[in-house]
Amino acid sequence: MADNIYVVGHKSPDTDSVTSAITYANLKNQLGMKDVVPAAAGEINNETKYVLEYFKIAPPVVLNDATDKKVILVDHNEVGQAVDNIMKADILEIIDHHKIGDIQTGKPIFFHNEPVGATGTIIASMYELNGVAISKEMAGLMMAAILSDTVLFKSPTCTDKDKATVEKLSKICGEDPQKFGMEMLKAKSDIKSKTAKDILFGDFKKFDFSGVKAGVGQIEVMDLADLAPKREEILAEMRKALESEKLDMIVLMLTDVIKEASDLLFVGTAAAKEGFEKAFGGKVTNNSIYKEKVLSRKKQVIPPLESAFKK
Amino acid sequence: MADNIYVVGHKSPDTDSVTSAITYANLKNQLGMKDVVPAAAGEINNETKYVLEYFKIAPPVVLNDATDKKVILVDHNEVGQAVDNIMKADILEIIDHHKIGDIQTGKPIFFHNEPVGATGTIIASMYELNGVAISKEMAGLMMAAILSDTVLFKSPTCTDKDKATVEKLSKICGEDPQKFGMEMLKAKSDIKSKTAKDILFGDFKKFDFSGVKAGVGQIEVMDLADLAPKREEILAEMRKALESEKLDMIVLMLTDVIKEASDLLFVGTAAAKEGFEKAFGGKVTNNSIYKEKVLSRKKQVIPPLESAFKK
Repeated sequence: MADNIYVVGHKSPDTDSVTSAITYANLKNQLGMKDVVPAAAGEINNETKYVLEYFKIAPPVVLNDATDKKVILVDHNEVGQAVDNIMKADILEIIDHHKIGDIQTGKPIFFHNEPVGATGTIIASMYELNGVAISKEMAGLMMAAILSDTVLFKSPTCTDKDKATVEKLSKICGEDPQKFGMEMLKAKSDIKSKTAKDILFGDFKKFDFSGVKAGVGQIEVMDLADLAPKREEILAEMRKALESEKLDMIVLMLTDVIKEASDLLFVGTAAAKEGFEKAFGGKVTNNSIYKEKVLSRKKQVIPPLESAFKK
Repeated sequence: MADNIYVVGHKSPDTDSVTSAITYANLKNQLGMKDVVPAAAGEINNETKYVLEYFKIAPPVVLNDATDKKVILVDHNEVGQAVDNIMKADILEIIDHHKIGDIQTGKPIFFHNEPVGATGTIIASMYELNGVAISKEMAGLMMAAILSDTVLFKSPTCTDKDKATVEKLSKICGEDPQKFGMEMLKAKSDIKSKTAKDILFGDFKKFDFSGVKAGVGQIEVMDLADLAPKREEILAEMRKALESEKLDMIVLMLTDVIKEASDLLFVGTAAAKEGFEKAFGGKVTNNSIYKEKVLSRKKQVIPPLESAFKK
């Protein structure tokens, strides 16, 4: 296994990270690079499990340490979100759709970042560019990635290219996007079986806002009321994580995908709270600020936080 | 002009930086974005002047400060190489072929980096991808960029894609690549009219090697003997620049494009000298280390320096 090239997404892997690793490794395999294998930077979540089982694809190996490994990064380009010791790895390529982060390389590499709704959209176009046919299974995985990351096209990160790509992919895999997407979201938002810790860390990313160390998580549900009974437990978990992860603040987006709004739970220092309130133009009440129309961490939560803390 | 979008390359602009700004702005214009204009991050050099005059293209405006400007970066992705105050600009896109540097953005942007010999190669393929016809003039500029950056295909950074692209472009512009390339190199290596300062800063880039602040310049000539009379003057200029630019070391590659070798002039601290000698496996003699087959700063000088200073 020493000479394998691992395609791997971010920690707290979501469906786009995991399926992008699988589909991009598949593309490389089709192009003759047989030593490229998919990996996940942690345990896969319920939604992704549902997707992989639906299309009968085995979950990828888990990669916990990148030291001396050859890797291709998908769906992230920040050291804090990557597998441990990523700067001791040989990074061969990066395919992403986020803001440009802090990963640096010692030599020129292929790095393609595009402001679309999902990495899956970019990978689908790379199959096309390379003239490689997309199998039913790979089409299903990429469609799932796009539907998941754009919350069924509702997120402001969603572009026309994402929609057009899903249309093409749905024809190949034979699944109706809306129907499949709702089933997938249901699998994701099955929170009864989840602990407060699962909820906090299920989709959790670290950021550095001009020196302010932050963690920003997100959980999407069909109805915020489902989360109400666990609210105090989740806040306690957030306060614990502040200390254990050495952070200045943690925001957890409780996102109602039907009402299209997010309740932004906050814990952190007084200075961080000030920045958080500035970012979202409100006062923290009962540990949160409720924001209509906020669905996207990447487009609606990270940029205002970046600006608020900019020196 | 306030709402223009400037396409701009690195400081100490070379032919690839300047022509990439012009050709990418042209592509955007063809695609209907009329407010995109090319710019240069400093005075253009003799080689680039020759190229622009040959194809009858006006030199771009000079952009000295990026504060509050909308910019598209070509041919670089490091803050230290960019127009002043680049982090106060709104960076819309990056097209490059170097190692991944330290530029970060607050929102997702289009960033395409590909390990090919020149940015011109990438831009030529973007015309194709977008189905935009390449004019004679634009073909000439992109061909010049590739021939310049790959030193007429001799640099180890040169890929098959660069060669194939030049073949296509030469048919469009009607110029023989070898013949045109030699004329261009002659224009570049006309060093008689150059001061020691011109020679040092004509193609000079700053780097940070694990905290060691370095400047690495390059001048390409047809015969190293032409530079011999100016050697002491150049070294004096390098020592002066160490202080004025607050650097720990400066390397100037005196590159003989015919013999395919570089004399690496060095000035710097004792610690930096140790790292430099480690990087190139030799002792500094008469202020330099001579290396056969070394033509590329990016591929043969920066990576060994990065490794040598890595903590």
